[in-house]
Amino acid sequence: MWTIDYEDLENIAVGAGILGTGGGGNPYLGKLMTRRYLDEGVRIQVVTADSVPDDATCASVGGMGAPTVSIEKIQRGDEPLVALRALEQYTGKRVDYLVPWEIGGTNSMRPLVQAAKSGLPVVDADAMGRAFPELQMCTYSIYGVPGTPAAISDVRGDIALFPIASSDKLLERYARAVTIEMGGHAGIASPIMSGADMKRTVIPGTMTFARDLGAAVRAAREQLTDPVQAVLDVCDGQTLFAGKITSVERRMAKGFSRGEVVIEGLGDDRGETMSIDFQNENLIARRGDAVIATVPDLICIVDSTTAEPVTTDVLRYGLRVTVVGIPAPRLLKSTAALDVVGPGAFGYDVAFQPLAGVYGSER
Amino acid sequence: MWTIDYEDLENIAVGAGILGTGGGGNPYLGKLMTRRYLDEGVRIQVVTADSVPDDATCASVGGMGAPTVSIEKIQRGDEPLVALRALEQYTGKRVDYLVPWEIGGTNSMRPLVQAAKSGLPVVDADAMGRAFPELQMCTYSIYGVPGTPAAISDVRGDIALFPIASSDKLLERYARAVTIEMGGHAGIASPIMSGADMKRTVIPGTMTFARDLGAAVRAAREQLTDPVQAVLDVCDGQTLFAGKITSVERRMAKGFSRGEVVIEGLGDDRGETMSIDFQNENLIARRGDAVIATVPDLICIVDSTTAEPVTTDVLRYGLRVTVVGIPAPRLLKSTAALDVVGPGAFGYDVAFQPLAGVYGSER
Repeated sequence: MWTIDYEDLENIAVGAGILGTGGGGNPYLGKLMTRRYLDEGVRIQVVTADSVPDDATCASVGGMGAPTVSIEKIQRGDEPLVALRALEQYTGKRVDYLVPWEIGGTNSMRPLVQAAKSGLPVVDADAMGRAFPELQMCTYSIYGVPGTPAAISDVRGDIALFPIASSDKLLERYARAVTIEMGGHAGIASPIMSGADMKRTVIPGTMTFARDLGAAVRAAREQLTDPVQAVLDVCDGQTLFAGKITSVERRMAKGFSRGEVVIEGLGDDRGETMSIDFQNENLIARRGDAVIATVPDLICIVDSTTAEPVTTDVLRYGLRVTVVGIPAPRLLKSTAALDVVGPGAFGYDVAFQPLAGVYGSER
Repeated sequence: MWTIDYEDLENIAVGAGILGTGGGGNPYLGKLMTRRYLDEGVRIQVVTADSVPDDATCASVGGMGAPTVSIEKIQRGDEPLVALRALEQYTGKRVDYLVPWEIGGTNSMRPLVQAAKSGLPVVDADAMGRAFPELQMCTYSIYGVPGTPAAISDVRGDIALFPIASSDKLLERYARAVTIEMGGHAGIASPIMSGADMKRTVIPGTMTFARDLGAAVRAAREQLTDPVQAVLDVCDGQTLFAGKITSVERRMAKGFSRGEVVIEGLGDDRGETMSIDFQNENLIARRGDAVIATVPDLICIVDSTTAEPVTTDVLRYGLRVTVVGIPAPRLLKSTAALDVVGPGAFGYDVAFQPLAGVYGSER
């Protein structure tokens, strides 16, 4: 068990930003919200998944919506907790532990904010090991813990509950549709589950991993060593490309930020081009016409000098960036998982060719 | 109190079709469903609003979606009841009486189907006295009974609950968005209320009015008198136009059937043109450029020979139709009501000029 301090918060924000693979929302606002609680002396405790009793009640909390909206539409901050309380009221259960839904992006911060407000501990784990655009793309759903009952809540305190859905993919569509009507962002609480189910399905240690990743990057910046190399070291990652962003095509479609970013090579990659498609998160990276990385592996765009994550919402012409490939967690690479989070699930007729290496929290 | 028989059912289908003002869904399928229950010997009891105790629990049930979808996508039939049971479970209340949400169109039939399945009595009343496209356009909402908590359910048994919404207009948007994801049609249960609140807000006697209207039309057909004149007599109505449909522009937009129908005059109206805009229901009727009737007054298109209602989904070139104007219920003509169901609420910069006469159940 550890308690979040200011350094942890800075580190998690950087690490989770990188693991967000472009999406998951920019952690900056979530970091500011959490910092306010630390200023007030609130303690936010992080516990290992292993330490959670089988019969405890856990719930995953986070935010739903497009990253581009989350920086434009300021949140109240407790939307996921309002959703959680509605879920508790509906099920008659009291939740003992909060679990991050996705460690990537600001959804790493949202559980911390809810923990600060509720006093509940946060489990050092998540259900993506990164960020994904859709609700069913999580290890809970892939390994048999249904997303229902689920609750969402918006900045006004409006609530929608989804007691039963034929599939988590339909739950995603229902919740997404209401999220759009709520203005493009909602807090979500889903699933509610036993400690045993949580432990069986989560990717453990990802909060610590995000923290350690961020710490290594920040240390490299301070020591004037190469922050991008620090990412590669901590993540068992590889540089896929380095260059300058020359084109960003980005549109809001059905509640998602979709588009493509094009990077012209510099240094060793001069004369080459990389294009990356995204749906909130980066999905597929092509060098020229050749696919060199796809989901579920992590395709991360970072500032070439500072390794600061460059999220979908801040991609712009002229940024010097390095594209880092990070191997996905083992639980995302099973046959069952690839049906949900592999390139085919996003409409690409491409086989998943895993990047070499082991996901950070599994090393 | 009366018990629905085969004749009542045929009469209500015709009367409710006319009161649907083009929308509310074609009553035909609902009639077939209800008839099956009568075939099985099920008794469906209709009680007056006055007879309901103040402390009874009432809930309104119906269907949500575009009429064009409801004839294409066959329903299981008990969707509103599944929604009602979810609402009961959520609130911990048991419902004693079903109340039609809108008497116009197939939403006159849906409460009968749910009554047949549940054994609950149906109140002889509704909250529109006609049909309207949106959820907040009902006398419950206008007179202070909020739509939340509300529940919707689809053909698969999927459920969405809306415990809290900042306004019924937002509830409409949330529920509509999920309805669209559910395939364009859902059963809805909303609001759940006391007998006192129900009696204070409903338009009483509308099931009887629909039945009597249908009976008069069917009698005229059998007696070879003028069925359209029968409509005018029972409804205190007036003929706005008679002619042939020459153009129908109809599109699905955001879960609604929207469009315009153009009628070229015949007989006394030869040389003139009437155009009617609709959003599920007929909203505004223009003779040439002059507005001659608007919501909330009922603009009903019926077959000129049989007075069979011509709903939005079956409008087509060549039909000989008569446009009948029927005065709206008193409760729809207050200042508070016109804010919600007047021409301005549908985006028309036109003052409401009420048609002469008194709504059928109020005579």
